[in-house]
Amino acid sequence: MELWKDKIRKVVPYVPGEQPNMPDIVKLNTNECPYPPSPLVEKAIREFNTSDLRKYPSILCAELRSALTKSYPVGAENLFLGNGSDEVLALCFQTFFNSEKPILFPDVTYSFYDVWCELYNIPYKRIPLDKDFRIVPEDYYGNNGGIVITNPNAPTSIYMDIEYIEKILENNRDVIVIVDEAYIDFGGRSAVCLLGKYSNLVVVQTYSKSRALAGIRVGYAMACRELIEALEAVKNSFNSYTLNSLSQAAAAAAALDNEYFESCVNKIKNTRQRLINELDKLGFETLPSSANFIFTANKNIEAKELFAYLRSKGVIVRYFDKPRINDRLRITVGTDKEIDRLLTEIKNFIKERTQ
Amino acid sequence: MELWKDKIRKVVPYVPGEQPNMPDIVKLNTNECPYPPSPLVEKAIREFNTSDLRKYPSILCAELRSALTKSYPVGAENLFLGNGSDEVLALCFQTFFNSEKPILFPDVTYSFYDVWCELYNIPYKRIPLDKDFRIVPEDYYGNNGGIVITNPNAPTSIYMDIEYIEKILENNRDVIVIVDEAYIDFGGRSAVCLLGKYSNLVVVQTYSKSRALAGIRVGYAMACRELIEALEAVKNSFNSYTLNSLSQAAAAAAALDNEYFESCVNKIKNTRQRLINELDKLGFETLPSSANFIFTANKNIEAKELFAYLRSKGVIVRYFDKPRINDRLRITVGTDKEIDRLLTEIKNFIKERTQ
Repeated sequence: MELWKDKIRKVVPYVPGEQPNMPDIVKLNTNECPYPPSPLVEKAIREFNTSDLRKYPSILCAELRSALTKSYPVGAENLFLGNGSDEVLALCFQTFFNSEKPILFPDVTYSFYDVWCELYNIPYKRIPLDKDFRIVPEDYYGNNGGIVITNPNAPTSIYMDIEYIEKILENNRDVIVIVDEAYIDFGGRSAVCLLGKYSNLVVVQTYSKSRALAGIRVGYAMACRELIEALEAVKNSFNSYTLNSLSQAAAAAAALDNEYFESCVNKIKNTRQRLINELDKLGFETLPSSANFIFTANKNIEAKELFAYLRSKGVIVRYFDKPRINDRLRITVGTDKEIDRLLTEIKNFIKERTQ
Repeated sequence: MELWKDKIRKVVPYVPGEQPNMPDIVKLNTNECPYPPSPLVEKAIREFNTSDLRKYPSILCAELRSALTKSYPVGAENLFLGNGSDEVLALCFQTFFNSEKPILFPDVTYSFYDVWCELYNIPYKRIPLDKDFRIVPEDYYGNNGGIVITNPNAPTSIYMDIEYIEKILENNRDVIVIVDEAYIDFGGRSAVCLLGKYSNLVVVQTYSKSRALAGIRVGYAMACRELIEALEAVKNSFNSYTLNSLSQAAAAAAALDNEYFESCVNKIKNTRQRLINELDKLGFETLPSSANFIFTANKNIEAKELFAYLRSKGVIVRYFDKPRINDRLRITVGTDKEIDRLLTEIKNFIKERTQ
């Protein structure tokens, strides 16, 4: 028996959506943008001086930081940049949640939160969404070690108006409130406008979804200077150079192309509405989506069965075998062509079953 | 008083070498390669399909993994890839050092180790190097929670023959022994050849130094499958996609160009020898270097004073204001032209002081 095995940390990791390597598949399972990033990204990568890769990246990320402050009403000192919003969120958990009291988040939400709590030994409590999968703000008032709200929530796709975010902040002055806005650009108003009023608010966003840059891993937190400095110190105790030079250049280019960004977001919103309408006709009940995905159920169809059928036809969506949501599918809003293929396969499924 | 301030984690971060943004400086302070990466890297970046950046990176990193197994006698399942070797090492500390007993590392070594111990609440003990700045292997035999050896060591630049690494492994069967080989390509033999014999050995390397790719942040650990799986589980509890698509492509390209790699390493070794010889003539005593930097002292010169003088002339080297080493400078081996400039300024300094 090798004794070193006793001292190895054992954890149950988060399981991301599968990344199958099959030809001609329609991949609607990881909420990626179906459109390529801004043409300015291609230009930035083509023009990048690869000789400079011999040097460490800029720790300050000055160019990217400056580009981001053009999109949001924050200063450079209010931004913390990281290797994807997962890294940013993990560092937030590690930095801000050191209370004996449990942190609170919904029972149905991003499934990485409890994984980070386990990793960092943070006590936590899952607060049930109501029967319509909505967050009940009052459930989050006081007596906790911190709060994490995904808005719009995932996988529900439902947006909570920021007046309720503010209510939660008003009733939680003594702990950190994180608002994870990975999907905010697809239909909500960012809580970033509350930063001036609440020094305990942290807003986290990503370039993986609406900016079509999941491949470069860029996420960021926006908060008051003191919280950003605390994050920087923990990050610099872990890995000083988390954001590589090429990703910095690509994200900075994308940040400056709001016109392209908005046209992509609008296309996705239009396709989303069409998808919801078509699913309505097929008897699906879809939650009101403010995200680039929908969360849908059909009383007459086993979600798990439909998931497997679609997969066998090369259409990959996401199924969560978990309480409350195992009758639903999460479907990323792809291109119109991809959604047509999805709808065709769903119709085939229904036809085959009723024969 | 805002009560949330009480619960924020406070840490003293690692301070990396400065990255000054001055024109015409000679930057010999962060051990970067003075030569650009392989031309295959430029080709890979130029030909990269930037549309693919909309998708998450490959978690498996299959292409890079396969390229790396061509350089080392390990299988794909023996490799753990990360966002720079700092991330890899930090995750190793978090995963492998969960003992009540202190882990051991030299008193003079990479200054991130104690920072990670503080971050993860790992007990640790610094073992003094001998008077010649050499590791005494016997000091690491038994009764500890794990061992970390940098080989060649930094900032000393001294390589310890792997027969002594093996002695340490023989006498520490029950804990994990990490060998951090950031500088191994500049003059040592990798402990990777011991992996088959010792399942508790973890060898960590980086593409930031000898492969001239500090800007892309790629590092990796090599170990038995069980240790790699434990690392993967902890990483996937933190951030599933740490290695972005562009960095994967760049590193995979560099991995396949061993001819270019060897020519760069040989140039650096030649320049290193010339630098040491020239410093000898000026009365410096330089430790025997197997790295891409040297660690040098001169009894007649205050290191701190020379450091400041060089900085004022635009030549940036590294000075550590720490016990035992505050009479020395760590100087990266740059191009021959950069080293000429350094030597000229050192001579000017000596001349000015003796006038």
